Order: sequence, then structure tokens, then C-alpha cells
Amino acid sequence: MAVQTVAVSTDSSAEAVDLGPAAALSCRECGERFELGPIFACASCFGPLEVAYDLPSGSPEELKKRIEGGPDNIWRYAPLLPVPADVADKPNINPGFTKLVKADNLARELGVTGGLYVKDDSGNPTHSFKDRVVAIAVEAARAFGFTTLSCSSTGNLAGAVGAAAARAGFRSCVFIPHDLEQGKVVMAAVYGGELVGIEGNYDDVNRFCSELIGDPLGEGWGFVNVNLRPYYGEGSKTLAYEICEQLGWQLPDQIVIPIASGSQLTKIDKGLQELIKLGLVEDKPYKIFGAQAEGCSPVSTAFKAGHDIVRPQKPNTIAKSLAIGNPADGPYVLDIARRTGGAVEDVDDEQVVDAIKLLARTEGIFAETAGGVTVGVTKKLIEAGLLDPALTTVVLNTGDGLKTLDAVAATSQATATIRPSLDAFRAAGLAAG
Amino acid sequence: MAVQTVAVSTDSSAEAVDLGPAAALSCRECGERFELGPIFACASCFGPLEVAYDLPSGSPEELKKRIEGGPDNIWRYAPLLPVPADVADKPNINPGFTKLVKADNLARELGVTGGLYVKDDSGNPTHSFKDRVVAIAVEAARAFGFTTLSCSSTGNLAGAVGAAAARAGFRSCVFIPHDLEQGKVVMAAVYGGELVGIEGNYDDVNRFCSELIGDPLGEGWGFVNVNLRPYYGEGSKTLAYEICEQLGWQLPDQIVIPIASGSQLTKIDKGLQELIKLGLVEDKPYKIFGAQAEGCSPVSTAFKAGHDIVRPQKPNTIAKSLAIGNPADGPYVLDIARRTGGAVEDVDDEQVVDAIKLLARTEGIFAETAGGVTVGVTKKLIEAGLLDPALTTVVLNTGDGLKTLDAVAATSQATATIRPSLDAFRAAGLAAG
Ligand SMILES: Cc1ncc(COP(=O)(O)O)c(C=O)c1O
Ligand SMILES: Cc1ncc(COP(=O)(O)O)c(C=O)c1O
Ligand SMILES: [Zn+2]
Ligand SMILES: [Zn+2]
Repeated sequence: MAVQTVAVSTDSSAEAVDLGPAAALSCRECGERFELGPIFACASCFGPLEVAYDLPSGSPEELKKRIEGGPDNIWRYAPLLPVPADVADKPNINPGFTKLVKADNLARELGVTGGLYVKDDSGNPTHSFKDRVVAIAVEAARAFGFTTLSCSSTGNLAGAVGAAAARAGFRSCVFIPHDLEQGKVVMAAVYGGELVGIEGNYDDVNRFCSELIGDPLGEGWGFVNVNLRPYYGEGSKTLAYEICEQLGWQLPDQIVIPIASGSQLTKIDKGLQELIKLGLVEDKPYKIFGAQAEGCSPVSTAFKAGHDIVRPQKPNTIAKSLAIGNPADGPYVLDIARRTGGAVEDVDDEQVVDAIKLLARTEGIFAETAGGVTVGVTKKLIEAGLLDPALTTVVLNTGDGLKTLDAVAATSQATATIRPSLDAFRAAGLAAG
Repeated sequence: MAVQTVAVSTDSSAEAVDLGPAAALSCRECGERFELGPIFACASCFGPLEVAYDLPSGSPEELKKRIEGGPDNIWRYAPLLPVPADVADKPNINPGFTKLVKADNLARELGVTGGLYVKDDSGNPTHSFKDRVVAIAVEAARAFGFTTLSCSSTGNLAGAVGAAAARAGFRSCVFIPHDLEQGKVVMAAVYGGELVGIEGNYDDVNRFCSELIGDPLGEGWGFVNVNLRPYYGEGSKTLAYEICEQLGWQLPDQIVIPIASGSQLTKIDKGLQELIKLGLVEDKPYKIFGAQAEGCSPVSTAFKAGHDIVRPQKPNTIAKSLAIGNPADGPYVLDIARRTGGAVEDVDDEQVVDAIKLLARTEGIFAETAGGVTVGVTKKLIEAGLLDPALTTVVLNTGDGLKTLDAVAATSQATATIRPSLDAFRAAGLAAG
């Protein structure tokens, strides 16, 4: 976690900032509160800041009705997010309310009897869950008067920022490791913003962005996952809200979530806790499981070793979107997995590819490598007896297979190539029904 | 249009076939009616067959309420589709209810003042509108007892069939021209069905499939766009329904639709006519515009020449998904464009690329080449005075940019690649806010 605090460099007075129910920022470590602004670390203890709310009063039934009557995207949850009440009228890419797919075929293959669901975030506008976090950061950037949107990205975030900036009327300039997949590079560039490849891995990119924020060169820049990180992170709560609403306002028993920086997992837990507090779901135990690729498994390594801190790694995996060797929210992930009775596990690249194809051939869902990690870890956890197949389980697919074609291209080609004749077809031996 | 009729080769008796409100097949040319079955051409005149309905009785208000209370996918329109009433409970990939994006930035660039919308079907499960037509064909294949799902495809259909078959429990074997884009090939293969590349273009593939249907080799095979074509086509009506519902149960004044075989355009018109007949929208004029790529423009060529018939072409365009040189529904498209006061126009490959990038940088929507064709033609029609910028206009994006990366890859790369240092960034000259 970068520990530098950044002065509020815009002239919006505190009163002018309308982010709906967001009341303040509070330090996750010491609890100190700060005015809403583009800051991300506590001035006293350097802990990460998060959004504190004046949550809606009124009965759970009233709130449910209000949500269910809202738009078919994340703005239905505006009363629980740091966004102005009229957010749905502003230009944004309006992600969310993606499918929760009942995965009966996959359940049969994995031996799950308690109900298995895939939350398929490849249905978002730029086909990853990152549209959720960016949509919230855009509203914060608007409120704080930024004119350039930026980020350090493992690939998906860059595309999400590019698209959202284009539609919302921001300039964008995003930073990626120079050696990402073609689909991610092209998508990050096609919306017309600036795209900068950095010679190094994601952790180098992220360090560079922290420097840039402290420098006059970065003035007026909203880095969605750095100086806007407290707002950005809240977008992942909408995954928790949607899953519970789509289950009929019920908590799942078990959720499996991929980990890069660990923000998403941490905020899904926060979202579930809020639903319990608001009385929107029954208060009962749930378990949160984290998924990493073996080639970048700092959190699962720490979990299995029983450590509280996460030792950085040098990533080497085909799951490039999860390749963060020094995850900012790693310690919180460990805490959540242990507190809820979950676990953190990893799978190797071959298992990632197998899991992508397993999900595709059972449910017709084509996941990116991050989805392969999550499905692969689910399988491994069941086999190890750590995930209970008799309980309701939700597995996240957070990205799209079209962005990581290389992972499966070698083994996903035409079965045969033939001349257009019945004889040639007969010879290919594919007719048997 | 292939003119061969196919005997119903399953033993489901007529009573056993439950396709909801679908009452019969009727000939589009002579009106003769046939029992519901896997047939596609009239036994008397060889005209194409289409589904005839017993449409719901009751007031428009009742029907609207029923639809609005239905699921957030095409099954909300089950009372108007050839599917059983319990369709939403069966394993299918449940496409539809994609975003209708108010495209104010694009409208400004194009000078549209009457309201411009992009119907963005890249949000479907396999990221093209083909999921709609396949979902309906799957229910017909189930009803007729087929065990293998097949199609001739320009790319998107192959992926949609592969995914739907995997989830619904069919074997699949799909046919494509051997030289498609990598994204389309991998997606068509990843779901685990058979994928056959044909040495030839789409018209060769289609001819081969017609032969295969007439041969014992093809027994038990449901070709979604050949022997199931009457059902398949109905899926495109849902685009008409959704657009009108999302506009608050109003017809748009103008719609721009891409053309390959012409099925989609024809069925969107059918859907609009049904809404008028049912009293769900006010009866008022609307104009339908068709869009083709110059390198495969048999329909626009015929339109501009004032012909009633369509002369086949040999396709040569980057818009491979629209590369059908001998479009089955071409004459009907001409008829609809002329009857509604619309037009059919084409743009060249460079204009396609420019239009993809225009849509991306204004609205954050990354379209495939087919979407570039439609946006490009919209621009051209406005400039030519054929499309009225003062009227409400809907433009279809029917596919996803990630599937046709090559179209924009050369011009969508990193602006700069640098070492992770402020000096290197300063030298790149990108800091100016
Ligand atoms: C597809 C995908 N899934 C999951 C993640 C993990 O996100 P987080 O950094 O919040 O742990 C990422 C991060 O880039 C991602 O791209
Ligand atoms: C993306 C896309 N748009 C439009 C079409 C046109 O479809 P139709 O054959 O119904 O005219 C196709 C056909 O393959 C397609 O793939
Ligand atoms: Zn603190
Ligand atoms: Zn006839």
C-alpha cells in the first residue's frame, strides 16, 4: 500500500461535494475520519481509507422496493454507494445487473448438490467487473473536478477507464505493463485515450503511478485505483448486492472470488455485511474463498503458511489480469478468509486452461484466465474438502475469454478443414449423431 | 433461398409440439399453411415459410404488464414467440434485454438532434445478436427431437450455437469459411462442439449445408438457419420489441440495421408490425434503413439500381460477418426499405474502421466490423439527406469489437512505451491535462 497522502488539489469546497450517502472517509486501521476528497491514506497512521456512509433509514421492505424499482444496472443501489442521487442521468457506461447463471451442468461435473451459480461479469460493457469500480470512480472524479482519468492496470481496468472516460467526457491516460494480451491492448487504445506501456510488470506500473500522483505532472489527474481508490473499491460491493438480490435476498453460503490486489474480495465482504446490517438479508454465516494463479500467489502462500502479512512475489502466469505480486489489500483478504471460515487457494496455468474449457463446455460461458483461476480453485477446494458441495455456492467470472484468446487458442481450433462436399465431410468422420 | 423441402423426420406427433402461441408455418409468398415442423420452404411454391401465431387476446395494457413483469431477457416476450410458456425454466443462454444507449456524444458529431440511440447487442452472452435467434432455434430443436445443433455461419452464429448447445445439452457441429478472424474461430471451438472449416466463402458453406440436410448424413441435425430458419428468424423480432419497450412503448422514427442474409432486418419489421397490431405502440410511420459493406453489397446495389431482385456478388470486405454474397432475404429487404421510405446504403472498409473508432471514442462502445458498417452508413445517410437528423433514430450494434481486433489493431496500440520513470514520462509529452 502506498502510504503517501495527497492534498485535495481542487477548489470544490466540502459542501459542494455531493456523493449521496457518502459521509466521510474513515481509516480502516485507526478509524480516524476525513472529509470526502481524493485522498487514500490516513494522515495519522497511513492506513487505507474507505467510504463511511449515512445509510438509509426506513424499513428493509421499503429499501428493497426502492432498489427493485430502480434501473437494471448498479445505480439501483445508489442509496448504498458514494454517488449523487441523480447518478443515473449522467453519462456513464452503467454496468452491472449481470447474469447469475444457475450452473447445473457444471455442478454435476463438480459434484455440487447445494446449488452452484456463476456470477457472469463478462456481460458488463467492456466485459469485466472493472466497469463497476470505474463507474463509481467516474462520479468521484466529476465531484472533485478532475479532467484526466488514469489508472495502473493489468489490462481490464485500462479498457474500462478508456470506455468510461470517452462516454463521460474525460481525457484519459492509462498505464499498463508493455507485454499484455493483444485483446487488452487494443481495447484499452480503441476509445481514443492515451495508452502508455511501461517496461516492467504491474508492480512497476503501480509504483510509477504513485510517483506521478506526487508530481506536478500528475496534477488534475484522477487515478481511479490510487487517489480515487476509496470510491473505486465501493463498486465491487454491487457484486454482493446483486448476488443476494438475484438469490431472492439471500446470502449464498460460499463465494469464490479471484484476487489481484484483493480489493474486490474485500469489498464484496463489506457489501454482504451492509446487507445484513440493513436487514435486507438474514444474518447467517457465509464463507469467502480467494483464488489465485500459482505463478502469482502471494496471498494463498501466506494463507497456507498461516502468516498475517503477504510477502511480494515476481509474477509469472498466463492469468495476467491477476498478476499483482504485491497486493495492496492482501492482509485484509487473509483476515476475511480466516474470519468467515473460507480459504485462499491457487491453481497452475494448465489447470486454468482446463477450467476455462470446463466452464465453456458445461455452461456456454467463455471466461478469461481470471475466470479459469476461480473455477479451477473451486474444483480444487471441493476435492480438498474445503468447500462444501452441499451448500449454495457462487463462483465469480470476472472477465471475458475473448480478451485472453492465447490461453486456449492452441487447443480451440477447427476439428477439420474440408472442401464443401459430402464426400469430404464423410471422410472427416463427424456425422455420427 | 434453397428451395428444397424436408420431410419431418421425427416422430413427435403434431399435438406433441408445444411452441406456445405458434400455430402453424405459413408461406410468405402464397400464404399456404403447414403444420409446425422442421421445414423451411413451401411445398407448393418454394417460398420461405414463417411462423403464424395465435397472438394473445386481452388489452394492450394487460399484455404490457405481463411483459414488464417477465424476466430480464427475451423470454419476457414469450407470448409473442414460438416457444413453450415455461421456456424460462429450460437450460438456454437467455439473451436479450441489452442496453439501448442514448448516444448524445455521437449525435453531436453526426448532427442528430431528434435523439440518437445505439441498441448494443454486444452485451449478449456470446456478444452478438445471434444469441437471440439461436435461443429460439434451440427450443424448436428440442420440440422436434433433434440431437445435433448445426449452422452455416459467417462467425458469430457459430459461437452462439456452440455456447447454446453446450448449455442446453445438444451435440453441436458448425460450419464456417476456413479463413475467419481468430476470435471467431476460437470462440466457435471453445465450447467443445465440432467446428468444421470449409474451403470456400459463406455461400459455399451454405450450399454445402443444404446438401447435407438432404442427405442421410444430416439426419437428426437441426440447422438453426436452414431447416429451423422459420423459428430462428423470429428471434430478431425481440430487437424490435426491446427497442420499443425501452423507448417507453414507442416506435422509433428511423432504424439502421446491418444486412447479411437480410433475416434480421426483415424480422425487425415483422416485430414492429406486430406491436402495432397488438396496440402496444401507436400506429405511425417508421423508416427502415439497411447497411452493407461496399465489398459485399448485393442488396444496396439492387436498391440503388431500382431492381427487385438481388444479383449475387463475390464478397471481399473486412466485415466478414456480413459477407453473404447471395442473401436469402434480399428481396424482402428491398421491399421493406422501399415501403417504409428507408434506403439501403454501403460504406467501404476504411469507413468501417473510422466508424468503429468514432463509436468507441464518443460512446465507449467497441463494435465489431458489422457495427462499423451500421454507424458508417448512418453517417453517410445523414450526409446524403436520406436520414432525417431531426427524428428519433436507432442504430444497431450487433457484434463485439473483441471478435474483429484486426480491423483496428494497426491503429489502436500504445501511444508510447516507456521505462517506469517520471523523466521518461515527461519526455513522452503526455502530461498536459
Ligand atoms: C478479470 C479480473 N478479475 C479479478 C481481478 C481482481 O481484482 P482486485 O485487484 O480487486 O483483486 C482483476 C484485476 O485486475 C481482473 O482484471
Ligand atoms: C454481427 C452481425 N450483424 C448482423 C448480421 C446480419 O444478419 P442477417 O443474416 O440476419 O442479415 C450478422 C450475420 O451473421 C452478424 O454476424
Ligand atoms: Zn489511520
Ligand atoms: Zn407458397
